[in-house]
Amino acid sequence: MAPRWKGKDAKSKKDAEAEALKEPMSKIVSQLQSSLVQSNACGSLSDSSVHIAVQAEQLDLLDKAYFGQPVRNVAKDMYWFQLTLEEAFYLCYSLKCLKINRGADTSPLNDEELWHCFNSKKQAFSFYYKAYSHLRMKNWVVRSGAQYGVDFIVYRHHPARVHSEYGVLVRSQDNDDDDVNGRLRVWSDVQCTTRLLGSVAKTLLVLYVNKNGHSDGSPLYLENYAVEERTISRWSPEQCRERSL
Amino acid sequence: MAPRWKGKDAKSKKDAEAEALKEPMSKIVSQLQSSLVQSNACGSLSDSSVHIAVQAEQLDLLDKAYFGQPVRNVAKDMYWFQLTLEEAFYLCYSLKCLKINRGADTSPLNDEELWHCFNSKKQAFSFYYKAYSHLRMKNWVVRSGAQYGVDFIVYRHHPARVHSEYGVLVRSQDNDDDDVNGRLRVWSDVQCTTRLLGSVAKTLLVLYVNKNGHSDGSPLYLENYAVEERTISRWSPEQCRERSL
Repeated sequence: MAPRWKGKDAKSKKDAEAEALKEPMSKIVSQLQSSLVQSNACGSLSDSSVHIAVQAEQLDLLDKAYFGQPVRNVAKDMYWFQLTLEEAFYLCYSLKCLKINRGADTSPLNDEELWHCFNSKKQAFSFYYKAYSHLRMKNWVVRSGAQYGVDFIVYRHHPARVHSEYGVLVRSQDNDDDDVNGRLRVWSDVQCTTRLLGSVAKTLLVLYVNKNGHSDGSPLYLENYAVEERTISRWSPEQCRERSL
Repeated sequence: MAPRWKGKDAKSKKDAEAEALKEPMSKIVSQLQSSLVQSNACGSLSDSSVHIAVQAEQLDLLDKAYFGQPVRNVAKDMYWFQLTLEEAFYLCYSLKCLKINRGADTSPLNDEELWHCFNSKKQAFSFYYKAYSHLRMKNWVVRSGAQYGVDFIVYRHHPARVHSEYGVLVRSQDNDDDDVNGRLRVWSDVQCTTRLLGSVAKTLLVLYVNKNGHSDGSPLYLENYAVEERTISRWSPEQCRERSL
């Protein structure tokens, strides 16, 4: 299925695609990274998310790179942004452009502390994070898929420019008994998910995370985890038949 | 959600409803029952379905009551019909209007033999059959829900007259580890299923079958099984707000 660029007509769709090509997501994320490093950005841990106060320029970059969501305006030229645990850890650990503390006057947590903390806050975080970072590193924009009953949905570029193409479910390849979310174990679930995603022009992407025998005891093991990608879609006999002459 | 009668305009929808009321499903099923009893109908077991040869009148009644599906015309005025295991057992055991043998020249199986045979052919058959018969006894038309990733879909009357209203998933209330189909254990699955069914104007109906400590060793225990019905639907804030003046 080809990416569906947004626009009222063919021309504005073409424009959306051209703009996206001119400003690739990798470049936007690099700009965000530089900006956060320069400002020595530090977020604060709350229940199951991370809050970060940013200024107008970073607000714009966070939005363009599509990380987190704005919460409210705290002061003139100062904005609160809320990040998911995966987004926060990606900025901290993979992009090295964010620090996170437990509250205003505490010192930032190191990678190991943060990893343990996030793992204790969210079940199977190590699997979800591996999947999230795997997609982000390939320059996909990754958002929660709760609306469609999947773990993530991914976009080729900013959602203002393009519809999301894939609904993602994360699974463990190690052991079925220790599965991440228990999804896709029965045919009816596969049928339900592919039918739903198909009806909103998305494809089901299953990411099988294989820890290769490593534990989730340290973020250093992340690079030893492997990810296998599989798409599942409904087969329509009409798609493959010869065109009538 | 009100039943959606089929028709091009309001008048033909009204007509479909009026015709359905004039000829209720309970009456059609009774006619089918009498007809099969009179003809001493006998089906044959095949892999995971039952085949029955019927004449034109019964063909019409089977279609009106929406049991099974026609397979092919074997001879003049003789038609093969294919029944699912639940449909066949319902006609045999609950309506007492069908016998089933293992092949042309064998004698019909009794209820106990049939029950054991069907249980060995389909995993969790006892649960599915209890759910199926529970709905059929309330005069719902019950069909496979494979298309929507659920166990059954149910219609208020014949599908030619009305759209199906519910997608049904069967669950065990006894023990989560011994679940029927492993569905709805995680929120993402609930979200996926309700979203899909909502998009095709159906509601998710979950039937919890409680065996009350009885085994599936005999069909006689079926009447001791209890069924609890729950519908699950997405909540839309707009539905409940006051109308703007």
